Amino acid sequence: MWLQSGNPQSPMLIECIPNVSEGRRPEVVAAMADAIRRVPRTRLLDFSSDPSHNRSVFTVVGDAVSLEQAVLALFERAVADIDLRTHKGEHPRLGAVDVVPFVPIQGVTMAECVELAKKVGDAIAKRFAVPVYLYEEASTNPVRKNLEDIRRGEFEGLAAKMARADWTPDFGPSAPHPSAGASVVGARMPLIAYNINLATDRLDVAKKIAAAIRQSSGGFRFVKAAGFKLDDRGIVQVSMNLTNYEKTPIFRVFETVKREAARYGVSILESEIVGLIPSAALTSAAEFYLQLERFKPDQVLENKLRSAD
Amino acid sequence: MWLQSGNPQSPMLIECIPNVSEGRRPEVVAAMADAIRRVPRTRLLDFSSDPSHNRSVFTVVGDAVSLEQAVLALFERAVADIDLRTHKGEHPRLGAVDVVPFVPIQGVTMAECVELAKKVGDAIAKRFAVPVYLYEEASTNPVRKNLEDIRRGEFEGLAAKMARADWTPDFGPSAPHPSAGASVVGARMPLIAYNINLATDRLDVAKKIAAAIRQSSGGFRFVKAAGFKLDDRGIVQVSMNLTNYEKTPIFRVFETVKREAARYGVSILESEIVGLIPSAALTSAAEFYLQLERFKPDQVLENKLRSAD
Repeated sequence: MWLQSGNPQSPMLIECIPNVSEGRRPEVVAAMADAIRRVPRTRLLDFSSDPSHNRSVFTVVGDAVSLEQAVLALFERAVADIDLRTHKGEHPRLGAVDVVPFVPIQGVTMAECVELAKKVGDAIAKRFAVPVYLYEEASTNPVRKNLEDIRRGEFEGLAAKMARADWTPDFGPSAPHPSAGASVVGARMPLIAYNINLATDRLDVAKKIAAAIRQSSGGFRFVKAAGFKLDDRGIVQVSMNLTNYEKTPIFRVFETVKREAARYGVSILESEIVGLIPSAALTSAAEFYLQLERFKPDQVLENKLRSAD
Repeated sequence: MWLQSGNPQSPMLIECIPNVSEGRRPEVVAAMADAIRRVPRTRLLDFSSDPSHNRSVFTVVGDAVSLEQAVLALFERAVADIDLRTHKGEHPRLGAVDVVPFVPIQGVTMAECVELAKKVGDAIAKRFAVPVYLYEEASTNPVRKNLEDIRRGEFEGLAAKMARADWTPDFGPSAPHPSAGASVVGARMPLIAYNINLATDRLDVAKKIAAAIRQSSGGFRFVKAAGFKLDDRGIVQVSMNLTNYEKTPIFRVFETVKREAARYGVSILESEIVGLIPSAALTSAAEFYLQLERFKPDQVLENKLRSAD
């Protein structure tokens, strides 16, 4: 007999990873970080700057309301402090705040992150007169789904590009902001950077396996992959980005790489996650290999603790 | 270049699961739940009562200081409201608050949970004149490590048992509290209730596999296991308790059951987790099967979020 279950809904948790075109003036980056931190109910998990790219990446989590405020606070500083007309860096960029992806983490759907991207994009355009393109899951036009396609030509080619009918932005003016360019706002799944190291020094094997599993050459839809040599270790690596771990799960990629390697008489030495991975991506691997049935996320003790916050 | 890493230590998180000898008077159980809830920095995740056992189980998390207060608050109510002299129920019991295990979850060692068990045991004895036995990892005497050994004879046999020299309690008087008996306090790893269902109706196979893997007949140290028939499904089950998932991990148990079953020409149909499982137990299975190297718990996105709280 359960008298009380004490199991409310998980709180909404969205990750937002704004990329800003400033990586050389620490005081300017710190002011943007402070602007994010001052917004209640957001947490700035970390931020990093790359001087050669002249670019900084912020990782912030919160709910839909707090993240909208955080992004607008970041824009306010970035539009004031960054001038693309004098900005130089190795990384392609279109605007002062270049890209703003929203990523569903917990208690939120992709559809809600798409709605948030549209709401924030509209607010950016209205408040700062910066044109906004929606990308990835939030895209309204198939030719503007990929970030690379939207960014092609960069800030320097933006005015000419925007003059074309099919490059009317989703929000805001049909010409670049003079100093802040344009911004790309959208929603996507978390990326998993995943490498599998092979017990061989044969680069051709790594390259053949990469070609077998990546979407671009007929493999899994949500896999980008390339083969590399790790010279210092005398081995080769299949280096991957998994762009949707729900639809192309990590265990299926691992098992396919293992089978393809066996065809060349090669074993998997090890694999590695670079950076962060959502716990659900690891849990799904445990479910697969342990043949777990009827397993629910709230059986994970830590999920239960979180939902009771 | 990292300007700021934003990665403080995880907060201390201990789980405490007091078992109380009252499962028939909801208002008494509710008052005990309220007493726990009123303690700052504790969270009562849930509680359940079993009327035939006449027993209730509370699951509460917090830090060492808040859990000590919560356990004392629970004792205050239980000692006032429960009288073992008139208590009847199917489940063996020694005291009004029968058992109090502390379980390390995050940012805390087993040694710290043992210290907490001793501190709380001492406080219970001093404040309520209830004798306390330490058990499991907190045990000070090998014959008093297992809960079943301490509880044998139950409340009704307690006075005679305590008169023997080797049953002097760890804290408190050498005779039972008249109405509240004695309490067992200790520290242990989280239990995982894990079942593997076999694609056969041969009960002998399930029983042979259970015997092969459980400690009592020569198997893994931290496995208790038995074979059962699931009549409604026409299959058999190896039902297990994993008492230390770090030292006897779930994937090793699964693989051993799979190999033993194959020896009888039997396959694993599925497995299932009953109740809660710490995410580390699932992560370790993913690490094993994916051959993950250099993986750190703070690469799990949710762990990173938690540590930034």
